[in-house]
Amino acid sequence: MRLSRYFLPVLKENPAEAQIVSHRYMLRAGMIKQQAAGIYSWLPLGYRVLKRIEEIVHQEQIRAGHIPLLMPTLQSADLWRESGRYDAYGPEMLRFKDRHDREMLFGPTNEEMITDIFRAHVSSYKDLPLTLYHIQWKFRDEMRPRFGVMRGREFLMKDGYNFDVDRDAAIHAYNRHMVSYLRTYERMGLTAIPMRADSGPIGGEDTHEFLVLASTGESEVFYDDRVTSLRLGQRDIDYDNRAQVAEVCKEFTTLYARTDETHDQAVFDQIPEAHRKSARGIEVGQIFYFGTKYSDAMGASVVTADGSKVPVEMGSHGIGVSRLLGAIIEASHDEKGIIWPEGVTPFPVGIVNLKRGDSAADAACEGLYKALAAKGLEALYDDRDERAGAKFATMDLIGLPWRITVGPRGLANGVVELTSRRTGESEEMSPEAAVDRVAQIYAGR
Amino acid sequence: MRLSRYFLPVLKENPAEAQIVSHRYMLRAGMIKQQAAGIYSWLPLGYRVLKRIEEIVHQEQIRAGHIPLLMPTLQSADLWRESGRYDAYGPEMLRFKDRHDREMLFGPTNEEMITDIFRAHVSSYKDLPLTLYHIQWKFRDEMRPRFGVMRGREFLMKDGYNFDVDRDAAIHAYNRHMVSYLRTYERMGLTAIPMRADSGPIGGEDTHEFLVLASTGESEVFYDDRVTSLRLGQRDIDYDNRAQVAEVCKEFTTLYARTDETHDQAVFDQIPEAHRKSARGIEVGQIFYFGTKYSDAMGASVVTADGSKVPVEMGSHGIGVSRLLGAIIEASHDEKGIIWPEGVTPFPVGIVNLKRGDSAADAACEGLYKALAAKGLEALYDDRDERAGAKFATMDLIGLPWRITVGPRGLANGVVELTSRRTGESEEMSPEAAVDRVAQIYAGR
Repeated sequence: MRLSRYFLPVLKENPAEAQIVSHRYMLRAGMIKQQAAGIYSWLPLGYRVLKRIEEIVHQEQIRAGHIPLLMPTLQSADLWRESGRYDAYGPEMLRFKDRHDREMLFGPTNEEMITDIFRAHVSSYKDLPLTLYHIQWKFRDEMRPRFGVMRGREFLMKDGYNFDVDRDAAIHAYNRHMVSYLRTYERMGLTAIPMRADSGPIGGEDTHEFLVLASTGESEVFYDDRVTSLRLGQRDIDYDNRAQVAEVCKEFTTLYARTDETHDQAVFDQIPEAHRKSARGIEVGQIFYFGTKYSDAMGASVVTADGSKVPVEMGSHGIGVSRLLGAIIEASHDEKGIIWPEGVTPFPVGIVNLKRGDSAADAACEGLYKALAAKGLEALYDDRDERAGAKFATMDLIGLPWRITVGPRGLANGVVELTSRRTGESEEMSPEAAVDRVAQIYAGR
Repeated sequence: MRLSRYFLPVLKENPAEAQIVSHRYMLRAGMIKQQAAGIYSWLPLGYRVLKRIEEIVHQEQIRAGHIPLLMPTLQSADLWRESGRYDAYGPEMLRFKDRHDREMLFGPTNEEMITDIFRAHVSSYKDLPLTLYHIQWKFRDEMRPRFGVMRGREFLMKDGYNFDVDRDAAIHAYNRHMVSYLRTYERMGLTAIPMRADSGPIGGEDTHEFLVLASTGESEVFYDDRVTSLRLGQRDIDYDNRAQVAEVCKEFTTLYARTDETHDQAVFDQIPEAHRKSARGIEVGQIFYFGTKYSDAMGASVVTADGSKVPVEMGSHGIGVSRLLGAIIEASHDEKGIIWPEGVTPFPVGIVNLKRGDSAADAACEGLYKALAAKGLEALYDDRDERAGAKFATMDLIGLPWRITVGPRGLANGVVELTSRRTGESEEMSPEAAVDRVAQIYAGR
């Protein structure tokens, strides 16, 4: 993308309404624009990151054997009366009537609707296991929306629902979700720690939240700090292998890690003092096993191998897709701006032309732009007629992890400069070598 | 995808509520489930086609130089008061109040919001031309929603908005949209004819609708039938070249083609009788040039090269993304089911194992499945323990354009069968040749 033809409305001033760094930088980098309290437009740069995050979530869910579909944003109140939640749900639920005076709502979650889909079409254990998920906009009418996309009212969420014939199979589904979530967050450059949590209004026996440590987090968390160095890495997971998947879950949940809701000081005190930590955390996902709560209420059952009819065992599992942008920025920024992890960056690399109009510099930039494109990498090329300082400031603010700087002086020696946004370190090399290096960095992503 | 692990709830019976073939087949093929009047869940197979259509729309918009972003589904009533449309818009607009009693609405279209984004960030002609678009769920509270996704209440639409410094530039944007739409529809296997139309409630000077001929269409259309053989084909379009783009538009809009709203019988009668046709059509898109209607009302202006301040010239341009699934099926089906064009099919090819449990058949199917995957083609492999007739009926109903049939008898001679859904013709060949043929068919898509 050539910046001269893009829509990247960066702000020079810090917006007064933004209290936390991710909100501030998302506004300043021209990623979002508020349209009403807690409701945002995703401007082109923000939209690119949102799509990238969505794509990673899809890939890891599909890898785990889960099946995407898409439920609508609006739901009928009748479904929620069946589960008893229409009256139980608080004023966060946006309710209204359509032109025929039928009671409707903007879905804050989808347990009822997915159970309705299941019971309409599945009646045999032979069609199980089944996990269906979607990524769709939700609405929760927060009393005081704040912190930008971290606590918005209209937000994008991945929510998945497993249907299993018995408790063991449902626990395996729960574990599958935990492992697929770990991989999802790691690909985004995040350390998200699964912590034993409270079940809240969805109800459930077993639940973990995934928390990213950040000083602006809304939850207080207590943990053994050895948990922060656990990594899934590139290990091969067979999601059909119950023992292997359970083993990974055990590895990630044995060390103490809890939110204040489930914190147990006596157990915590037994951790060696050097490893005993408390901090703030941002919740970026949650998994629940809740058994037959909805299938009982809504009559979703299957016939088992021995001919008996049992309510299906369920769980629900969510990732806060739009909120993740805020969480990633909270965890990865400096005083100049955002520092995107390679996994989610809106553009893999920026090209800064130090002297637009200089024929060698223009030609070298064009050459880099096309050579990168030929390798499947869309650079953001700052081809504007601006001074170098302004171009660097924009690149630093929007946080592309790599920058290639092209100027007449370097080109006279046959080199351009490749700079890491994270370390600030620069290295001179030929344009060809810079393209190869960037391609290598992004290989396999 | 292995069918034994997929969620494809096909129906044997024709659903009573479906009056037109696309609605009937989408329900029977397990593509959608109604959740309320005019509101649907997109089950896995339907969701795949929806995503594919979305992807083609994105690719062609980006190719034309248009920039994607994403506006929220909910909007504040205040914006619509500025344009005067809050009161003017009928009961199709879903209005409600949030918990703080603020008036909100579910966006039926986005002229106001995009103008708001523009005026907040752009003030100079140097930032033009600019075309921003999104693909987002809309809601229009139709009095009598019907025909499935063809006339739903919650529907997915691509809507794009151009901002230009003068009328000539805005007409070029209009033309760019026309050409990019032609290519979009052609890639979906559709003949969509641009027809001069009425501007309706958005208001505008110049507007064309794109209509797909189908007996179930809601509009009566009148045309010179030579217009149906025009094709954009593979020709190279430079979207910055005003003359070239205008020439293509002229080619596609010179022959008579109008809806009943703009029909002129006297002009129509001058067409040679052999070419004079009237038929029914389904509207799948519309482009508008409306000048300064919204920029005047909402104060969106730019400073020009000579220092004067002028209201920006605008247009809006829409494609009915979810509706396209219905239109494609109306245009491409037979008595056995859907016939997907290669450009939008949910899976490129199906594999039918005639004898599950036969080791040669099982191994051959696995081999085909993996060889296709290695070429980037995800087959739908019917590995269920069902009789052949049921498997063929399912494949015909869901309409994959190609099917590979694998059985012990053919394998004894080293062959499998490749069948075209459209022609019904089959050809025997080695499994390797079948993979190569399918890869060839989909090359470059």
